[in-house]
Amino acid sequence: MKAIAVRRGEETPSILEKPRPEPVEGEALVRTLRVGVDGTDHEVIAGSHGGYPDGEDHIVLGHEAVGVVVDPNGTGLSAGDVVVPTVRRRPNGSNDYFARGEPDMAAEGQYHERGIDGAHGFMSEYFTSPAEHLVHCPPELAELGFLVEPASITEKAIEHARASRSAFEWDPESAFVLGNGSLGLLTVAMLQESFDRLYCLGRRDRPDPTIDIIDELNATYVDSRETPVDQVAAAHEPMDFVYEATGYAKHAFETIEALAPNGVGALLGVPGDWTFEVDGGALHRELVLHNKALVGSVNSNVRHFERAVESVAALPDWFTDALVTGVYGLDEFERAFDDDDTTIKTAVEFGAR
Amino acid sequence: MKAIAVRRGEETPSILEKPRPEPVEGEALVRTLRVGVDGTDHEVIAGSHGGYPDGEDHIVLGHEAVGVVVDPNGTGLSAGDVVVPTVRRRPNGSNDYFARGEPDMAAEGQYHERGIDGAHGFMSEYFTSPAEHLVHCPPELAELGFLVEPASITEKAIEHARASRSAFEWDPESAFVLGNGSLGLLTVAMLQESFDRLYCLGRRDRPDPTIDIIDELNATYVDSRETPVDQVAAAHEPMDFVYEATGYAKHAFETIEALAPNGVGALLGVPGDWTFEVDGGALHRELVLHNKALVGSVNSNVRHFERAVESVAALPDWFTDALVTGVYGLDEFERAFDDDDTTIKTAVEFGAR
Repeated sequence: MKAIAVRRGEETPSILEKPRPEPVEGEALVRTLRVGVDGTDHEVIAGSHGGYPDGEDHIVLGHEAVGVVVDPNGTGLSAGDVVVPTVRRRPNGSNDYFARGEPDMAAEGQYHERGIDGAHGFMSEYFTSPAEHLVHCPPELAELGFLVEPASITEKAIEHARASRSAFEWDPESAFVLGNGSLGLLTVAMLQESFDRLYCLGRRDRPDPTIDIIDELNATYVDSRETPVDQVAAAHEPMDFVYEATGYAKHAFETIEALAPNGVGALLGVPGDWTFEVDGGALHRELVLHNKALVGSVNSNVRHFERAVESVAALPDWFTDALVTGVYGLDEFERAFDDDDTTIKTAVEFGAR
Repeated sequence: MKAIAVRRGEETPSILEKPRPEPVEGEALVRTLRVGVDGTDHEVIAGSHGGYPDGEDHIVLGHEAVGVVVDPNGTGLSAGDVVVPTVRRRPNGSNDYFARGEPDMAAEGQYHERGIDGAHGFMSEYFTSPAEHLVHCPPELAELGFLVEPASITEKAIEHARASRSAFEWDPESAFVLGNGSLGLLTVAMLQESFDRLYCLGRRDRPDPTIDIIDELNATYVDSRETPVDQVAAAHEPMDFVYEATGYAKHAFETIEALAPNGVGALLGVPGDWTFEVDGGALHRELVLHNKALVGSVNSNVRHFERAVESVAALPDWFTDALVTGVYGLDEFERAFDDDDTTIKTAVEFGAR
């Protein structure tokens, strides 16, 4: 079967021929439909994040997949089920986090991430997975199921942010999403139901397809070149919830100033080292005197995937049509890795249901 | 009646003669037993925190009180009830936070704080309070009831920290209290039941009475001059819970490095402005990749006071004997405001039950 992988020493993905995997006990065999591409894939390709599986000279890419079960192999699944795989897998030996269904909370060294770190991903015509790591999708989501994994990332971040505010009555009205990449836009769409006023940060000029989507979602576009994050409270309003998806380290700290009293910032970016000055006294004081919180969030588990299935199913067609700027077959898979200002979200298509 | 107050323009407290207050509808009249002194009192005296009541040339000090109801005035209380007052009061006009019993979550301008900001405190022979802001104490706590308010601060911080970890299974084992002042020591004692291993940060040499208490509580004393907060994970162990009670702004950021994966830091200090360098990229990344959280916490509400009553009642005698280094009558009240290395916790005594 064909797979899209990065070989050691190379910095572009290529197609490899690999044997079709055989499911072992507890695993099902899945025929891949589509696999999305995101910033993490670009980092894996560039070698700045993740790592090859032990003893392998390549890593198969892809962690945002949707497929169809072709061999349930004695698991509770049925042939024809549309499924989305979660990303983290047990390394050698189990651990408590996997045992209780919370691999997203496992610390470094206690997991592999398929397509990212230590395990092959889903960008191949077939893949196997333990059934416990496959989440059911309605058949209608066969085409857009590759959005479930990124949506699950947001579901977890929202869950943890809300949990942090659960000790008191919190009725948030305003939310500010930092980043107009595909995850930021997806999050703005997902937050529409639960917030009265939405804002989304970018640094692009109009006309721009991401700003068009922000407008269409009735969110306010905030240009960080005109209104930095730490000035948004004065320029617009203090934000009950901030969702950081830029990976720009100063945003993690400016978030504290953007928040309304009792607000919470969910941080999702993974920046490199960067030393800079902050008014640490003012930030510390502001966190305390206004009961603010910051929660870091990475990865997601089956519970978040299940919620994400519902969230993706509820997205309006105009939105997903605008968000997904390209779905490419194996004959032109390279285009799925384009990363210019007209590209928002892409996927590689391996087959149809 | 006699009251201990700071007059505008003065920087030491003095005794004033004031009329005994008359309870209005909904208020009870309370005869004061004891009122504790803490760092906030010293800040109010120095003029660096809080403010005078409108139109007054002085502020009566004291926000850590215990007293006996002498005139229930038609409220549900009974004469002889031992009570502890909460600190925040409605300013002119009500607001939602007070209406739902969460004045601790009100933003600036939406509350007065008795003895601190905009309202007279409890350091007088009698005080009045709306009954809804008086928390019952068992009579046995008549002498130590002044510890309930500081304990309630810790109850709230713990509640918010635990809430932030409630979206997953969190079984914390190690806790690190930053600060060996009276609040830090009280917190170490309160955490003994729920953590296997406790650490407490200070910067003093042995022999020292606070270090003796830390030893006696089976906690590990961490000297910040030898082991800075950001090195405690390597020197001892990563901490599931960090409680910051130093008001030293760098600690808010170093807490992120001290935390174990999935850990939470509760911040309680209120530092002044202070600009310094941080490796913001590393801190941001660490928050995200290890699902860490920071929660700021200020003040406390009736729910936290009620829990604090139980916590204070459970403190061993040896601990409260060592913690409370002095209780002084009005004839020597100045000694309650001493702030040297042999002083841990003091109170002014206005009367006995």
